[in-house]
Amino acid sequence: MRGVSVIGIGCTRFGKQNGVGIIDLAVQACREALDDARVPNERVQAFYLGNFVSEALVHQGSLAPMVAYRLGLRAIPCTKVEGACASSGIAFRHGVLLVASGLCDIVLTAGAEKMTSSEITTVTEALASAGDAETEMRLGLTFPGAFGIIMRRHMHQHGTTREQVAMVSVKNRLSGSTNPKAHFQKPITMDEVLGSRLICDPLRLYDCPPISDGAAAAVLCAADVAEEFTNRPIEVIGSGHAMGPGTLFEMADLTTFEATVSAAREAYRMAGVSPGDIDVAEVHDCFSIAEIAATEDLGFVEKGRGGGAVLEGLTALAGPIPINPSGGLLSKGHPVGATGLAQIYEIVRQLRGEAMNQVEDAEIGLAHNLGGTGAVSTVHILKRR
Amino acid sequence: MRGVSVIGIGCTRFGKQNGVGIIDLAVQACREALDDARVPNERVQAFYLGNFVSEALVHQGSLAPMVAYRLGLRAIPCTKVEGACASSGIAFRHGVLLVASGLCDIVLTAGAEKMTSSEITTVTEALASAGDAETEMRLGLTFPGAFGIIMRRHMHQHGTTREQVAMVSVKNRLSGSTNPKAHFQKPITMDEVLGSRLICDPLRLYDCPPISDGAAAAVLCAADVAEEFTNRPIEVIGSGHAMGPGTLFEMADLTTFEATVSAAREAYRMAGVSPGDIDVAEVHDCFSIAEIAATEDLGFVEKGRGGGAVLEGLTALAGPIPINPSGGLLSKGHPVGATGLAQIYEIVRQLRGEAMNQVEDAEIGLAHNLGGTGAVSTVHILKRR
Repeated sequence: MRGVSVIGIGCTRFGKQNGVGIIDLAVQACREALDDARVPNERVQAFYLGNFVSEALVHQGSLAPMVAYRLGLRAIPCTKVEGACASSGIAFRHGVLLVASGLCDIVLTAGAEKMTSSEITTVTEALASAGDAETEMRLGLTFPGAFGIIMRRHMHQHGTTREQVAMVSVKNRLSGSTNPKAHFQKPITMDEVLGSRLICDPLRLYDCPPISDGAAAAVLCAADVAEEFTNRPIEVIGSGHAMGPGTLFEMADLTTFEATVSAAREAYRMAGVSPGDIDVAEVHDCFSIAEIAATEDLGFVEKGRGGGAVLEGLTALAGPIPINPSGGLLSKGHPVGATGLAQIYEIVRQLRGEAMNQVEDAEIGLAHNLGGTGAVSTVHILKRR
Repeated sequence: MRGVSVIGIGCTRFGKQNGVGIIDLAVQACREALDDARVPNERVQAFYLGNFVSEALVHQGSLAPMVAYRLGLRAIPCTKVEGACASSGIAFRHGVLLVASGLCDIVLTAGAEKMTSSEITTVTEALASAGDAETEMRLGLTFPGAFGIIMRRHMHQHGTTREQVAMVSVKNRLSGSTNPKAHFQKPITMDEVLGSRLICDPLRLYDCPPISDGAAAAVLCAADVAEEFTNRPIEVIGSGHAMGPGTLFEMADLTTFEATVSAAREAYRMAGVSPGDIDVAEVHDCFSIAEIAATEDLGFVEKGRGGGAVLEGLTALAGPIPINPSGGLLSKGHPVGATGLAQIYEIVRQLRGEAMNQVEDAEIGLAHNLGGTGAVSTVHILKRR
């Protein structure tokens, strides 16, 4: 297996972008990444685009070749990959595989979603398609509902408190307040979270991410070719991609996502590192409780200790395990197909030492992307050379 | 690069399947393929599912892990790939890449689409998302419209006659009449095609494929591992995957699909064969005119000679270049996400010598899958060992 480096990154602002279509968003992020990498179009050998549900939201399928063509790429294989909210973690993974296996030297990966131009009922219905249409979703479950159940169970099983969960939102909104690309750039207080509108008991409005438009991209390059383009490549030392049950009723434990555990195991093993070696992590906080579950499933703390960890500040920017310095999905926004690569974008900036909320001397970073209620997950571990 | 073999195949009946959901369809095809390969679940290391537009048609996303979980697979990476009507050609391609690169020994690939449970307007709108929503499709173009324009241009530019194009439907409906898995199993006459309802001048009803439900699957295995499972592996000797413009207005020549030309070039080069070496081909006849364009773009005949070739019987079952012995999309049906793997299914059966419409002594076969009006194409070349 050849070494794989990230040599360029790009990310649009996340939020409501009137008059900017999904192809435009993706092209903008890709162009920024290619410029950052100083890679000309003709050197790109393959393109992967992560997108969840553009067919239902903006009537646009066939998105990968469409974006590539507008970007000026020609003839190369272009593939859209879909894994609900983990779509662009999967896109990045495929770039890693193609380069690591020696099939390509340079691969462009991106993720995009355009959500704010649709009616809110259309968005809710489209997002619900990440669950099982034939069972739970048919009966009216949506993702806020599913994570409300997961949150209740986490509180019951592990003694997690309402305040601990709310602290995730407070922490991430604080970090996001200094991120110029974040959808929400205003801190919130614990009282504001606890007093926000009830969505699905015990989940409240500020436990949820906003509905956003956005795109992100990364250029992957064989490590032995990277120096031709940059003197600060970031190495991909671990990649994991795994499945789990796609429904609540099939989960053995409602507070653990098997896909995350499996993907993390693969990534840690490949990287030869353990959770204690990670200096900074972007994890999939699609709801506040999801960050707590991820903190545990990724091995940063024991199962059941995630709530205490966030309230005690262990996962704060200045803590020993800084999590979501970008503001996470809760503050940055969650254009679902873009999220996985926006996490990579942040981790690369952290490891380059150029992040807005820089973790001091960060050398190894982790990005964790989750689809649905754990049907799929990717985990990537990156390292400063 | 390691040798790659197909060691198992499966395919559902194509057509209207009341009460059978998309997950059921995909599981059925996968189970048949795994049984055919005698591969137990725990040996499968990755799963790729081609599907175009299940989010819009049956409100089901996250389809790859959902299908894999129901099939009894656990933990492995599962990915849905989308490239409009070429989705499962792309799925098969990814199985080939993972095995060829040595990353996996055994990969399951499948394609599925459930179309008949939706209103016809929903289906038309969903299919139109394979075009550019921001330009042509917004103005009311649909795929029958696009291929009507392409047909008109082919007739104008190359002197192709209405009868020549109709002959594609007559030929394929004859072949499909003996395929027990085909949607249409009744031959039609030239007069019936020419007298059928006008859809988009000059395109008529019998120039179009039916709207179908269906799924198909193939198990890929490293050639050096294949003999553990079967004594009749079929080798994948060439794989091509390329993009082209996704709109009519960006095409340099309305009668040529650049994606097909590029993908075919890659596949022929990798296989070390030329069009004249192909004994049997399944090509993407999403409309009758598309088969004629493909016959030319794949190099079986010169550009402009495709119409004459079919009318003269050159591409008939008993001709020198038998094309679509399965009945093709026009007769077998076109559950879009399943089509690419259904082509592989037929070619493997031809090379095993067990096809319904067997081409005598077929040794090398080709499968050609096309997305939209040429945004993407895959070409695979298979060989009897």
